[in-house]
Amino acid sequence: MSMTTEFATYAQKLFDDVAQLGTDTLGVSRPAYSATETRVLEYLQREAQAHGILTMRDAGDNLLFSLPEEAEAERFVLVGSHVDSVPQGGNYDGLAGVAAGLFCLIKAREEGRRFARPVRVIAMRAEESHWFGPCYIGSKSLTGQLGKAELAAKHREDGRTLESHMRDLSIDVDSILAGKPLLCMDSVLEYIEVHIEQGPMLVEKRLPVAVVSGIRGNFRHKKITCIGEAGHSGAVPRAYRHDPVFALADLLSRLDDSWLTILQKGDDLVLTSGMVATDPQTHSLSRIPGKITFSFDCRSQSDTALEGMRVLLREEMEQVENTRRVRFELDEEMSSAPALMAESVIQSLRKAMVQTGLEPFVMPSGGGHDAAIFANAGVPSGMIFLRNRNGSHNPEEALDMADFLLGAEVLYNHLTVTGGAA
Amino acid sequence: MSMTTEFATYAQKLFDDVAQLGTDTLGVSRPAYSATETRVLEYLQREAQAHGILTMRDAGDNLLFSLPEEAEAERFVLVGSHVDSVPQGGNYDGLAGVAAGLFCLIKAREEGRRFARPVRVIAMRAEESHWFGPCYIGSKSLTGQLGKAELAAKHREDGRTLESHMRDLSIDVDSILAGKPLLCMDSVLEYIEVHIEQGPMLVEKRLPVAVVSGIRGNFRHKKITCIGEAGHSGAVPRAYRHDPVFALADLLSRLDDSWLTILQKGDDLVLTSGMVATDPQTHSLSRIPGKITFSFDCRSQSDTALEGMRVLLREEMEQVENTRRVRFELDEEMSSAPALMAESVIQSLRKAMVQTGLEPFVMPSGGGHDAAIFANAGVPSGMIFLRNRNGSHNPEEALDMADFLLGAEVLYNHLTVTGGAA
Repeated sequence: MSMTTEFATYAQKLFDDVAQLGTDTLGVSRPAYSATETRVLEYLQREAQAHGILTMRDAGDNLLFSLPEEAEAERFVLVGSHVDSVPQGGNYDGLAGVAAGLFCLIKAREEGRRFARPVRVIAMRAEESHWFGPCYIGSKSLTGQLGKAELAAKHREDGRTLESHMRDLSIDVDSILAGKPLLCMDSVLEYIEVHIEQGPMLVEKRLPVAVVSGIRGNFRHKKITCIGEAGHSGAVPRAYRHDPVFALADLLSRLDDSWLTILQKGDDLVLTSGMVATDPQTHSLSRIPGKITFSFDCRSQSDTALEGMRVLLREEMEQVENTRRVRFELDEEMSSAPALMAESVIQSLRKAMVQTGLEPFVMPSGGGHDAAIFANAGVPSGMIFLRNRNGSHNPEEALDMADFLLGAEVLYNHLTVTGGAA
Repeated sequence: MSMTTEFATYAQKLFDDVAQLGTDTLGVSRPAYSATETRVLEYLQREAQAHGILTMRDAGDNLLFSLPEEAEAERFVLVGSHVDSVPQGGNYDGLAGVAAGLFCLIKAREEGRRFARPVRVIAMRAEESHWFGPCYIGSKSLTGQLGKAELAAKHREDGRTLESHMRDLSIDVDSILAGKPLLCMDSVLEYIEVHIEQGPMLVEKRLPVAVVSGIRGNFRHKKITCIGEAGHSGAVPRAYRHDPVFALADLLSRLDDSWLTILQKGDDLVLTSGMVATDPQTHSLSRIPGKITFSFDCRSQSDTALEGMRVLLREEMEQVENTRRVRFELDEEMSSAPALMAESVIQSLRKAMVQTGLEPFVMPSGGGHDAAIFANAGVPSGMIFLRNRNGSHNPEEALDMADFLLGAEVLYNHLTVTGGAA
């Protein structure tokens, strides 16, 4: 699939058509397990069939595509992503990966080529956490990782449970409840996902495509409280203060220093405190506040780095508590394990990049993806990132069709030539 | 005035009686220029008269007390404070200073003593900014410093102007509008104010009384915005972040370091960021926020220290802007000049402390007081602080009668013995 005008025009039409199926006041909205999501699958089904691609629905009501001659393959490389989106979201988060897989099938069919190993492309439902709370619902169902508590989660708008929404689509909830994967796991040789990058790295580096090394795990606290002592801003000398704001500044500066050191040692880490607030009911210009609350989000590809930062957070808090006479109270930690992409797949994808004429660039993924679910289910997995401006989960997502086609070409080269990791 | 049981009992009764005149759901409420404030003045007038003290009302409808034999004195030491309070406030902020002055008159009368220089005690109205916005209304009127804009300020509850409230009490608003002091400034030899400390210094130092060296001036910003760039918490590497939260932490840590250095050089300074917030509409656990807002309050007794910190704030912001690729936007600065107490008065009050048997301790005042208004009007001024627990402007203000009487005794010794500063 070279960057022909024909392919670029078709790609643009396909993205535009799907956007039309789920327009929101701004951007697109494709709720998980909604009629809109179904209409998108039906559209993709018709498009695939028009190009001679075989389609079927699976037990999770996801859409599968394959070359007609590979329809009966017992083992295959699974290529895909999701078609749902957040409300007022962008058109490319998820959909780009499905389209890239579909394009590889169309190109192979047009060229009369078979893949190194049989390929099945999947358009999954329900990846975004926005609608029900749990995320990766589609891939978790397929791999037997969706739990009872998640099935009981309620839809943010209609209040009905996830289980009820899934049963409406005749999804095999009983197997899910029994912990049985909806997909025969033995049949999946490898899972490959193309996805837009959700950060600015490729834009900053002026690179169209990257291979993903792993998906960052995290530990997070929604609300940490730093408790000091309220006082008159003018009347309490520095030595008698228990100032939670300066204490938080001190804590974040200490963590920031360690962050830099950890990066310089070559480890992977990102730290964010996204929500910070003194109490609007009692704070004022001339009052040392009694407390401040903040969130903390730590992500890394490395379990060791996460555990190191977990310990460091406690240690630095203790230091700050002692020197600034404040107290930190942590809410319950939430966490998810990092998911490394298979080394053999990474190497194969690097070769495919070179074959495509690109500098082989490897980077971590900060956001979570279905690929992490497959990787954690024991499937050798890989990801290709596409350069994208303005982040994701907003209408400003911007994917150039040229970059999309380059990513699809890397995928195609991986599937056809460099072949087997298994 | 030694700490006789009799005086302690009377002091407690006087404070309790006044508290009863203005009880709130919690603590006391004595609005500026209200009927409650008037009732307090009337109560004090009766108490003073019962002890043979002469009383009169002035052109600002404040209450004046003097020994009968000093009633005609053309020049006098003015001793006083205010009787109004914030809502749900404490009973001692202001009232303690009026009571201390009154007690000195009663004691002089009982002991048949004359002061070194004639003394006039004043119970002023309207010091608290809570009710109308402007503060020190009573002392500003007396010294010709109340402006037209302040007179147009509206009462927080009834919406009527300050001017209208003052005219209701037959206060000479026309003189005020003409910039004419309601008090003949030539008659005031000195202004002395006893006040509860609004910080924890005396409690921490286990000292009952202090002499005040000066009243801190300030410069303040209600809202500074640090503007960065929003992004996915997991997907933006440290090097590509424009994180306003870490930028603010960096800024405050830098200012904190300088603060410490400035204190070590012997300068006076306090820094507070009382209100801090990311945007509740858009912030989230997994999002680098686009901006954070914070307030900044800098106070010092020294004009030079204030100006130095004003410059340093700009310089450090610029450093942080450059290293962290964010931008700071400042709202309009508010400021007030420091007011130094007269050195001769400080020395005389120190001697009075020694005479009272106390360690002569001198400290700055963080909060503003009527004494600053008199000092800035050219009157040699002094203040005595009383140890007080739990800060001020809340029902938990706690003044021991023993400490009150010690402070009153320092005042008495200053007025009777160590005498003239002029």
